[in-house]
Amino acid sequence: MCELLAMSANTPTDLCFSFTGLTRRGGDTGPHRDGWGVAFYEGKGVRAFHESGASASSRIAEVVQTHPIKSEVAICHIRQANVGSICLANTHPFIRELWGQYWTFAHNGQLEGFRAEPGFYEPVGDTDSEQVFCDLLNRMRAQGQRSDSLEGLSERLVKLSEGYARRGVFNLLLSNGDWLFTFCTTKMASITRRAPFGPARLKDADVIVDFEAETTANDIVSVIVTEPLTTDERWELYQPGEWRLWRKGEVMASGVVGVPDYPRPPTD
Amino acid sequence: MCELLAMSANTPTDLCFSFTGLTRRGGDTGPHRDGWGVAFYEGKGVRAFHESGASASSRIAEVVQTHPIKSEVAICHIRQANVGSICLANTHPFIRELWGQYWTFAHNGQLEGFRAEPGFYEPVGDTDSEQVFCDLLNRMRAQGQRSDSLEGLSERLVKLSEGYARRGVFNLLLSNGDWLFTFCTTKMASITRRAPFGPARLKDADVIVDFEAETTANDIVSVIVTEPLTTDERWELYQPGEWRLWRKGEVMASGVVGVPDYPRPPTD
Repeated sequence: MCELLAMSANTPTDLCFSFTGLTRRGGDTGPHRDGWGVAFYEGKGVRAFHESGASASSRIAEVVQTHPIKSEVAICHIRQANVGSICLANTHPFIRELWGQYWTFAHNGQLEGFRAEPGFYEPVGDTDSEQVFCDLLNRMRAQGQRSDSLEGLSERLVKLSEGYARRGVFNLLLSNGDWLFTFCTTKMASITRRAPFGPARLKDADVIVDFEAETTANDIVSVIVTEPLTTDERWELYQPGEWRLWRKGEVMASGVVGVPDYPRPPTD
Repeated sequence: MCELLAMSANTPTDLCFSFTGLTRRGGDTGPHRDGWGVAFYEGKGVRAFHESGASASSRIAEVVQTHPIKSEVAICHIRQANVGSICLANTHPFIRELWGQYWTFAHNGQLEGFRAEPGFYEPVGDTDSEQVFCDLLNRMRAQGQRSDSLEGLSERLVKLSEGYARRGVFNLLLSNGDWLFTFCTTKMASITRRAPFGPARLKDADVIVDFEAETTANDIVSVIVTEPLTTDERWELYQPGEWRLWRKGEVMASGVVGVPDYPRPPTD
């Protein structure tokens, strides 16, 4: 399996604190040592870092932990391979251009034997996740329009996600740099930090941050993960079948759809 | 304008030496301070580093200079903006998926007012270069086939390049991770290093490498640039209109087509 992390903020914000916590789970406090990747949007552009090794011992991950890259949307993934070999081509997040925007996708779960309907987008690697991403993009392109409202768009994404979730565990992060769509079948949680800010302590590293000192009073920064990253904050758990569409740190729309009752992982 | 660097090798090889020379020109020994990017293929996967600032003073560029990332094909670009604002979305190399392969593109020159024929691929940023890349991919998809031979493929790429070169200066690096296609209208040079290897000294930094100590007797590593990077080696200059298709460090095919007589930059 793997773990996911995303951020949605109303001002360019770095991900150093959360990224430090998550990447420890890539071979140190967790077993997700089969690759890691992170994508940061800057305006319409996106820059990504990918490696097929363990994040906990990566020099490049260390730079990303300590070098503040400021972004309003970021998506991160650490991998423990199940489907697909351990290689760069299989390392999330995956990125493709649709309608002149870079779409970024990271997935936790497994959709055994899933194959994308033939279409324009094709997987490069051999994971079920990339198959789903290509399928989703092919369907969005065929059924959707670039001029769709945020409401129309999320309706489509929910419908597609509901379908994928019938095929297997489908915890999803998806963004075009403007909005961030999240879907939970078994595990997802979020936290929204806004004034008054307080301190927070990572679960996986001996790191405390005082957000008060790092932010302004207007900042709204939300973090979405498959497993909470801090021990002293209150994370909002998603229900199975719950989706939330984030923009500028806030939930713009949300809902719950029916999904099969997959075993949920134990939490500590 | 900008500068280009590519590598084609028959064994995974790092780009540290050449990358160190080139990136000095991004704000130190050269004026190309408006962004830099590099893409490294690993198997079918590609990982890229992009920044919209100067490479000479970048902490991430420094890591790429000193942390050996091994690749058989790499493409690098440093930017001095002419068309398009200075931002991440305008930073080469650009990457898109075609036929289940990541295609990577970097361009030196200017095709004023160029607009891609409408098609599947669309630019995200506002450079003429990305317009050309999308146009090229749309035409390859419409006219070409994934099963095309290397010969058929290069014929198509030469024809397209010839057309673009009629619209403006078009020095090109393009790869799908297997082959590397290069096209020169005004400036390009290459060097192929193979046994017996010797030392080389960078023009832009006080760095000497002894390739003998870094290689095995079977290694073949070619470097292609818009401006030679070393002072004590013999670089093979391309003629205007010359193209070379590289694979595993060797020229698989080459030729010369007619291009307009654009002013060639002075060389030292």
